[in-house]
Amino acid sequence: MLNRDRLQKAQSRMRERNIDAYLILTHDDYIYFFGEDRFQPRAVIPANGPPIVVTFQGEEAEVRESIGVDDVKIFGTVGQQIKDVVGTMREMAGNNGSMTVGVQMWFNTPAFLLNLFQRANPKIKVVDIAPVMDELRLVKDEEEVRLIQEAARIAAVGMNTAAAWLRPGISENEVGAEIEYAMRKAGGHGVATPVFVNSGIRSGWLHGTASDKLVEEGDLVVVDVVPRYQGYCANLSRTFVVGPPTPQQQELFDVYRRAQSAGIAAVRPGARNGDIDAAARKVFTDAGYGEFYIPGISHSIGLDFEEKPRPTIHPADFSFKLVDGMTLTVGHSVLSVPGIGGVRIEDTFLLTNGQPQPLTHCNIPFQLPINP
Amino acid sequence: MLNRDRLQKAQSRMRERNIDAYLILTHDDYIYFFGEDRFQPRAVIPANGPPIVVTFQGEEAEVRESIGVDDVKIFGTVGQQIKDVVGTMREMAGNNGSMTVGVQMWFNTPAFLLNLFQRANPKIKVVDIAPVMDELRLVKDEEEVRLIQEAARIAAVGMNTAAAWLRPGISENEVGAEIEYAMRKAGGHGVATPVFVNSGIRSGWLHGTASDKLVEEGDLVVVDVVPRYQGYCANLSRTFVVGPPTPQQQELFDVYRRAQSAGIAAVRPGARNGDIDAAARKVFTDAGYGEFYIPGISHSIGLDFEEKPRPTIHPADFSFKLVDGMTLTVGHSVLSVPGIGGVRIEDTFLLTNGQPQPLTHCNIPFQLPINP
Repeated sequence: MLNRDRLQKAQSRMRERNIDAYLILTHDDYIYFFGEDRFQPRAVIPANGPPIVVTFQGEEAEVRESIGVDDVKIFGTVGQQIKDVVGTMREMAGNNGSMTVGVQMWFNTPAFLLNLFQRANPKIKVVDIAPVMDELRLVKDEEEVRLIQEAARIAAVGMNTAAAWLRPGISENEVGAEIEYAMRKAGGHGVATPVFVNSGIRSGWLHGTASDKLVEEGDLVVVDVVPRYQGYCANLSRTFVVGPPTPQQQELFDVYRRAQSAGIAAVRPGARNGDIDAAARKVFTDAGYGEFYIPGISHSIGLDFEEKPRPTIHPADFSFKLVDGMTLTVGHSVLSVPGIGGVRIEDTFLLTNGQPQPLTHCNIPFQLPINP
Repeated sequence: MLNRDRLQKAQSRMRERNIDAYLILTHDDYIYFFGEDRFQPRAVIPANGPPIVVTFQGEEAEVRESIGVDDVKIFGTVGQQIKDVVGTMREMAGNNGSMTVGVQMWFNTPAFLLNLFQRANPKIKVVDIAPVMDELRLVKDEEEVRLIQEAARIAAVGMNTAAAWLRPGISENEVGAEIEYAMRKAGGHGVATPVFVNSGIRSGWLHGTASDKLVEEGDLVVVDVVPRYQGYCANLSRTFVVGPPTPQQQELFDVYRRAQSAGIAAVRPGARNGDIDAAARKVFTDAGYGEFYIPGISHSIGLDFEEKPRPTIHPADFSFKLVDGMTLTVGHSVLSVPGIGGVRIEDTFLLTNGQPQPLTHCNIPFQLPINP
């Protein structure tokens, strides 16, 4: 169902910024306004009046019913869809053809689609919609918090599954399969990023995957899950060792846990995102691991796995001031020490009443049994 | 391991087209050259000399070992990574700073990354790398065919799982979870698109999802799977009815099967992609369903789910001439008839020795038992 409250807030912000329309090409904002996902979401939010959804003729009746908008354009083929979006924009532009259109300029907006649109509409000024949407999406309403809590519950199911399956001789991919399966059986709707099961030397990877590599006794294993529930994400990471840890592995783990705690303690309204980093970095530096610390231990989360502030991608976001009502993670950075491996411990929080309230709950011990 | 044969062919094509370097930002071409996936692949293929891979310091040793390139640049954070890629390009451009760089302009290249690159390097001319890569990737070598065959085997496991689980009262999402799990347990490395389980009115959807909707007795259910194996995809779709079909459902299914057969019979070297469409369309039209036919029944497949020719996105590809050695699907279009539902039957083929050789093998009956 169309969320008229969010629509009106977005339209008000668009008018303040002289943006005539927002061309939605990505899942997150489509879900934000219409409460449901589609495979190739295409919609136009004008600064005034009802939104327009571009869909396929065979889906029109269902779209009308599910989102209840007043004006649904129809397209016959995917090629036609693009033309219809452009045609819709031209109609809105009127005779002179000059207007300002916002587009999400982020990972999920395809370069070719934006280039195509700009070439077909040289009189239309295309701007980044982030100033309208980022701040709007930053503070989560009750319904959004409920969905993220549900995703967090599902994330814990995934992590418990990881701990139950990790053993010498199993492949990362098999463990990943078990995790994703368990999360979907628990009600999840897939994952925002593929599950990471990074074992041994791969535990030090900045990002990850779940490869055919077999887990070995003594491996550090970083598991990172980002399940979705009705579009909303929660992020949970844990690091395990299969069998008894070496003293170095244990120290790395203990230092990370203390650094995460220090980071969490820095989460409060008015603090800057970089303050969380500074608190964690001090722990790593005092323990002699400062040179291995990768800045960007916290990011916001919601319909996107990484929402603004996301300082690992936009360093200016280290200055971003936290506000009550936002959801964020602490523990995003991997501490990767050559010769030992990597550790990551990440949880998702709601900043509420001035305090970080944990949404993810997972208390599995660092050391896993060799034969679970 | 770096594939020097593919590298040399690409470099030769780049020199012919006066492209100084190809900036790789997507998984498919990274795998094509380096034989392994990474989470955020970033590499530069110069028109002459060894390629450059941009990675994270903690992963350098493993990257060096796994792909054996001569010159690996290092970055410390994700923000730094982008600067390093740009710095690498600037070094290659030399003093005058003018050069032509190819980039993949397709769904997986983020608009903001390309815009960032263009703003930071105004003297660099950015061109679409498609003329270099599309034709190169069109004809699959033996190793690629082997990987697609493996993906096809995994797709059949997924479809058999769908048939075993579909029953009244189960949700589309549960069936989707079982399918994805079975495909990964069978050796698959995730999916190129989320599994579609479109039931009832949703069977008529152009695209799909696996929602919380419960499957009902008498529902048409379109199942579409695109598993990956070492990056390579196979595409398999089947339509089922849970319980006895109505005469209209049966007719729709029979007509689609005949149309797919007619399309397959049109697959031969020198034929145009549109010839496959014309053959299928004639069957639909003769049966009275012509108005519901959505053009674009065949597309190429490989490291991408839809490779060139992909006429549903680029209508000019209807003129594309088929060649021996390409892999393609027939059955991509859904036949969506209001009041009845939708049917899709899609298989993957290798065009070899002048004939379409089926790679996907799946002979489950249309009618599924109500209590399997």
